[in-house]
Amino acid sequence: MNEEISQIVDKLTLEEKASLCSGDSWMSTEAIDRLDVPSINVSDGPHGVRIAEKSKVKKENKITTCFPTASAIASSWNRNLVREVGKALGRECRNLGVHVLLAPGINIKRTPLCGRNFEYYSEDPYLSGELGAAFVNGVQSQGVGTSLKHFACNNQETDRMLVSAEVEERPLREIYLAGFKRVVKGERPWTVMCSYNKLNGTYTSEHPYLLTEVLRDEWDFEGLVVSDWGAVNDRLKGLEAGLDLEMPGPSEANDRKIIEAVRSGRIEESVLDRAVERILRLVFKATNCAQEELEGGVDAQAHHELAKKVASESIVLLKNQNGLLPLDENNLSSLAVVGRMAKEPSLEGGGSSEVELSKVDTPLEEIKKTVDDKIQVSYAPGYPKSDRVDEEMAEEALETGKEADVVVLFAGLPRGIESEGYDRENMKLPEIQLELIQKISEVQSNTVVVLNNGSPVSTNAWIGNVPALLEGWLLGQAGGGAIADILFGKVNPSGKLAETFPVSLEDNPSHINFPGENGKVLYGEGLFVGYRYYDEKNIEPQFPFGYGLSYTSFDYSELNLDQKEMDDQEDLTVTVTVKNTGDLAGKETVQLYVGHEDPKLTRPPKELKSFKKVALKPGESKTVEFTLRGRDFSYYDPSREEWVVETGVYDILVGSSSRDIRAKSTFRLKSTRDFEKTLTKDNSLKEWLENEEARKLLKQIFPEGEGDRPEGTSEWMKNLPLKKLTSLSQGKITEEMIEELIESVQN
Amino acid sequence: MNEEISQIVDKLTLEEKASLCSGDSWMSTEAIDRLDVPSINVSDGPHGVRIAEKSKVKKENKITTCFPTASAIASSWNRNLVREVGKALGRECRNLGVHVLLAPGINIKRTPLCGRNFEYYSEDPYLSGELGAAFVNGVQSQGVGTSLKHFACNNQETDRMLVSAEVEERPLREIYLAGFKRVVKGERPWTVMCSYNKLNGTYTSEHPYLLTEVLRDEWDFEGLVVSDWGAVNDRLKGLEAGLDLEMPGPSEANDRKIIEAVRSGRIEESVLDRAVERILRLVFKATNCAQEELEGGVDAQAHHELAKKVASESIVLLKNQNGLLPLDENNLSSLAVVGRMAKEPSLEGGGSSEVELSKVDTPLEEIKKTVDDKIQVSYAPGYPKSDRVDEEMAEEALETGKEADVVVLFAGLPRGIESEGYDRENMKLPEIQLELIQKISEVQSNTVVVLNNGSPVSTNAWIGNVPALLEGWLLGQAGGGAIADILFGKVNPSGKLAETFPVSLEDNPSHINFPGENGKVLYGEGLFVGYRYYDEKNIEPQFPFGYGLSYTSFDYSELNLDQKEMDDQEDLTVTVTVKNTGDLAGKETVQLYVGHEDPKLTRPPKELKSFKKVALKPGESKTVEFTLRGRDFSYYDPSREEWVVETGVYDILVGSSSRDIRAKSTFRLKSTRDFEKTLTKDNSLKEWLENEEARKLLKQIFPEGEGDRPEGTSEWMKNLPLKKLTSLSQGKITEEMIEELIESVQN
Repeated sequence: MNEEISQIVDKLTLEEKASLCSGDSWMSTEAIDRLDVPSINVSDGPHGVRIAEKSKVKKENKITTCFPTASAIASSWNRNLVREVGKALGRECRNLGVHVLLAPGINIKRTPLCGRNFEYYSEDPYLSGELGAAFVNGVQSQGVGTSLKHFACNNQETDRMLVSAEVEERPLREIYLAGFKRVVKGERPWTVMCSYNKLNGTYTSEHPYLLTEVLRDEWDFEGLVVSDWGAVNDRLKGLEAGLDLEMPGPSEANDRKIIEAVRSGRIEESVLDRAVERILRLVFKATNCAQEELEGGVDAQAHHELAKKVASESIVLLKNQNGLLPLDENNLSSLAVVGRMAKEPSLEGGGSSEVELSKVDTPLEEIKKTVDDKIQVSYAPGYPKSDRVDEEMAEEALETGKEADVVVLFAGLPRGIESEGYDRENMKLPEIQLELIQKISEVQSNTVVVLNNGSPVSTNAWIGNVPALLEGWLLGQAGGGAIADILFGKVNPSGKLAETFPVSLEDNPSHINFPGENGKVLYGEGLFVGYRYYDEKNIEPQFPFGYGLSYTSFDYSELNLDQKEMDDQEDLTVTVTVKNTGDLAGKETVQLYVGHEDPKLTRPPKELKSFKKVALKPGESKTVEFTLRGRDFSYYDPSREEWVVETGVYDILVGSSSRDIRAKSTFRLKSTRDFEKTLTKDNSLKEWLENEEARKLLKQIFPEGEGDRPEGTSEWMKNLPLKKLTSLSQGKITEEMIEELIESVQN
Repeated sequence: MNEEISQIVDKLTLEEKASLCSGDSWMSTEAIDRLDVPSINVSDGPHGVRIAEKSKVKKENKITTCFPTASAIASSWNRNLVREVGKALGRECRNLGVHVLLAPGINIKRTPLCGRNFEYYSEDPYLSGELGAAFVNGVQSQGVGTSLKHFACNNQETDRMLVSAEVEERPLREIYLAGFKRVVKGERPWTVMCSYNKLNGTYTSEHPYLLTEVLRDEWDFEGLVVSDWGAVNDRLKGLEAGLDLEMPGPSEANDRKIIEAVRSGRIEESVLDRAVERILRLVFKATNCAQEELEGGVDAQAHHELAKKVASESIVLLKNQNGLLPLDENNLSSLAVVGRMAKEPSLEGGGSSEVELSKVDTPLEEIKKTVDDKIQVSYAPGYPKSDRVDEEMAEEALETGKEADVVVLFAGLPRGIESEGYDRENMKLPEIQLELIQKISEVQSNTVVVLNNGSPVSTNAWIGNVPALLEGWLLGQAGGGAIADILFGKVNPSGKLAETFPVSLEDNPSHINFPGENGKVLYGEGLFVGYRYYDEKNIEPQFPFGYGLSYTSFDYSELNLDQKEMDDQEDLTVTVTVKNTGDLAGKETVQLYVGHEDPKLTRPPKELKSFKKVALKPGESKTVEFTLRGRDFSYYDPSREEWVVETGVYDILVGSSSRDIRAKSTFRLKSTRDFEKTLTKDNSLKEWLENEEARKLLKQIFPEGEGDRPEGTSEWMKNLPLKKLTSLSQGKITEEMIEELIESVQN
């Protein structure tokens, strides 16, 4: 195909080339009919196919399932399910004539307030990368491309079109780029979407380091980079930096700038050709794939059921005092469903990811269906849609709640709070809902709260009064049934949080550096994002990363490492036995974290490096096996500009959450690389004295009358860089002597 | 004098000029005998005059008093006392022939671990600046110069000769430079000493922004900049940046470089002349002053008594359950003094500030003197000097402690833990001392712990078991008597902490960014240093900034502001009535903090802006008056490169500590400056729509068929920068239209 493309490029006029560099409309690329270059369609978004207003897709084929949003699905910790969702979305795209799905979004949740967090997976780059990879794999297996976004450091909506994320190299590599690297290298997404913001002062849409050095030179990305919609700042800088396709289009002014720049010699035509080739490669690849028949078509019902299955694995049981859940249909006579969100749930957030809904299962209806006529189900909205005070409604809810055996209370964030384009102001539920929870819990000891939100809310004020709490996320069109299944134990909850729920907003790592000011936001917390921060600062979260309860219990035993010492070229096999010790079948996500006991550079206390979700029948045991490679112990060393594995002692921590480590073992890793430092004049006297040759030479040059120096010198003297000896010896040790010393030791 | 100096400069050879740019030895400047340019002597340090080994001072005149170190004296919150100490040191300098005292050190305590914290005043720039100013005023009133140090951002000892403090402009200005500005502008120190470290990548010894733009151009500093000993990196860059004098000397290699650079034209001779003139001005000013007779000479005994008085105001009463303190000589029959530090106290820290001691009052001896024969005083060292386990010694202490009516237990950091040249590793007392406190408190309910340390130690593990706790700092030669006076109520404690004592090390603001790596330390906490952080993050400290108990109690009432609304050119007079409601005379430090209710840029919840220490007899009331100026409400706005006072509502908070605010009032301040923003293409659609003219024009250019836009557009659209309309309108709004709009509105 490359040859064919290069022939087309040869035939294209300069004007045609430039026109290809922006779309022909909001959601499709430019065609060149003369040369049979077709237009292809792209479509949002991460949890469902959005058909934009003027989209050219085959609307008559419309089947668009609204799956749980990313923050929900991430809580499933289930790569297979995410892949299945990807496949389903790929098939819906094929059916509609969409060639590239603008997803997944794998930005890191730096702050709980980011308006778009519901579209993202996690605060952890490994988990984000694993799930993003599964999603891309699923979509692309159906012959539809993905757009891995938003590259990079678009971790807030406030000022997103202008703000510069000021990020040091290590957090950039280890936290913010790591997930992208995983997906790019492992799954080769057809496209990557650059973000709106600046990174360290440069728009990511014109960032050569990001779009070329890292993405293409280091990670071997061969696809196309598309701008987020309107993210282009300086089109020519973008083209040079590696931004191929500007969206939306047409962007005639920028196309003209490209033409003029090539004509004037400001830009080499080869730079334009490079972008055009990438665009053509995508177009032909996409149209070729689209020509294949979609066997089996799209089964809307099957997708709805998949959406429900995913939802049921996404729900997180946060509290379950005295085993109030699951509710026993046979031991209840009445159930009150309280809260308008039971009837009018939030299914997704606002912005470009919004999917048109054709079918919605509400929790209220699904609960009624589940209990059939066995239990009397009453309902009271409790609060109006506006979330304004309505005392009559509150009173009614209280009466309804008081009389029932159990209350299931639905609370959450009203539509409009969580959206692309702006951030949340706080983590609070609406005041009226807080009052309702408070009042209901006073009259009804059997209260189950079901949350309906895309990102953490404060629960600290009332969690103590409520015996059971479910995190019900934004579950998409089939979430109602999933909630009913969990409530009544048809499904045993197995979701685990993919992000920390802090006790209060001030606890979160970005708090003092969010949302920035004067066009900058300093990522002052560095590597300490999410649980890495709560661990290092020893701050107790409300609910920690990786946390989630089950209706059964799991025991961990027999943690085994196949070697206690290895080098960084070998693999480490870790096994652990997990047993279901309760009476119900259930699933457990076994999490493996790695800690580094004495690193040269700072490292978080522990980092997630693997996980497996296992299903266990009551009494059943399984041995879970993990394979870790040398690189799983590495960190990025900016002074070497590479990932390094240090020789040292590492902890293997296996647990049920980041704060519930059930088994620990240590082993010794040996680096096969020679990281011997070359001694320079910046090294301390202490470091120099560790070198035998240097020690001898140092003795010779030390001034007379200085006693038994250099070794006998005081502790603080030993911390001096070698170069300081000239000045502090008042010239008795000269620069030349230092130079000679360095040369002697280096030879 | 300037003319005279300029004549000398004219007569100096290039070689002579260069030679003047470094000292002639460790502690004095170069003389040019041919032209009657004398050499002058400099001497460490902040709490006493240190006579260096090869110093040329008149050793036969040796009277060097060791005063409490800076972290102690800062706890006095007493400007007059600090001034008195400065005067005494100035007189000792005069007596010895020292012309410039290398003090005060006013670096901010960014971390409790900084090895040199005992030499610094506070975590707060206002308090640091006020006390630094008083010190400089005192020393210089005696015709002796000071060296305000270490300029700037030398907030750790780890890697201090190489590390770059990476500090954003606002914290640099508002936290790290503010104290320097206060002292430079208010007291005109003769010299400023640059630090060892880099600031944002450039050594402070060659930092034109720091040494010239800020220090000289903005603050009108007319004195000389001297290098910290060995701080010169590139001598020529230093000279150009505004570093005049290199110390120590001679530095022949660098002098030669200067000569060659002038000869080759690499450096203008006028740059060298500028430094030489400043050096000569200092030399002649210093020698002129030194010629005046020192009336009254130096009274060693008076200085010792001053040292004791300062110490007694520096001690902080941290806990006093059930009024265990003061001890009543008439109601006690036996007292056990436990802990080797009672007999061998730490009086100062390690490094260049160490003063030779000729006279030391130990706590043990002073306690014995105080009680005379009225009480039986027993003593047990409890732990050996090495702080190694010694069970016999511990057993003896336990026996001694058990039998007495009261135990006064001395604990602290062993010599060598707190020093210039390296940082502490943690905040722990030695293990053996912790065990001793634990065991003694088990057998003796009347235990008073007296701490002996220069910076915070953890007390969380044992504070609950101990009824009384005194922070006894490093109190210098006369501290023993001060401790005895406090214990027995001869002096009512009035010290207040000048820095936060965190519950645990992880709580401190720099924790995740200390001490940095790969040659950099990111000041990621920004403005949130010290109590500003604990307030903003809502972290409960062990003992907050400004905290300290008394043997009496104080009531606050009648907070009054002389106006409720004013502009930034006016002064605000704040009065508050403080009453001694107890039975003992005492002193209270009334602290005034300012909060800004809705600032455009982020600001700490409150900031110290004034304080007064008042003495009150039992039952006595005083009205304390504070005057605040417009600038006391300002912050530094990097986008304007200036300090700005925003129109807005401000809180006046008056209290006994940063966490014990006793009265609050608010008032409205109006800026007299026009901060109207010029609308640019980076401003949001929302901001543009607030301008009537712009709203009209925007309506005209909005594409047809977009309904009632622009006003009717969605919330996230309104957050778009104006410039994004070109792309997102798919070219219907052109760049030219935007340019025209901007021009129309600006005209």
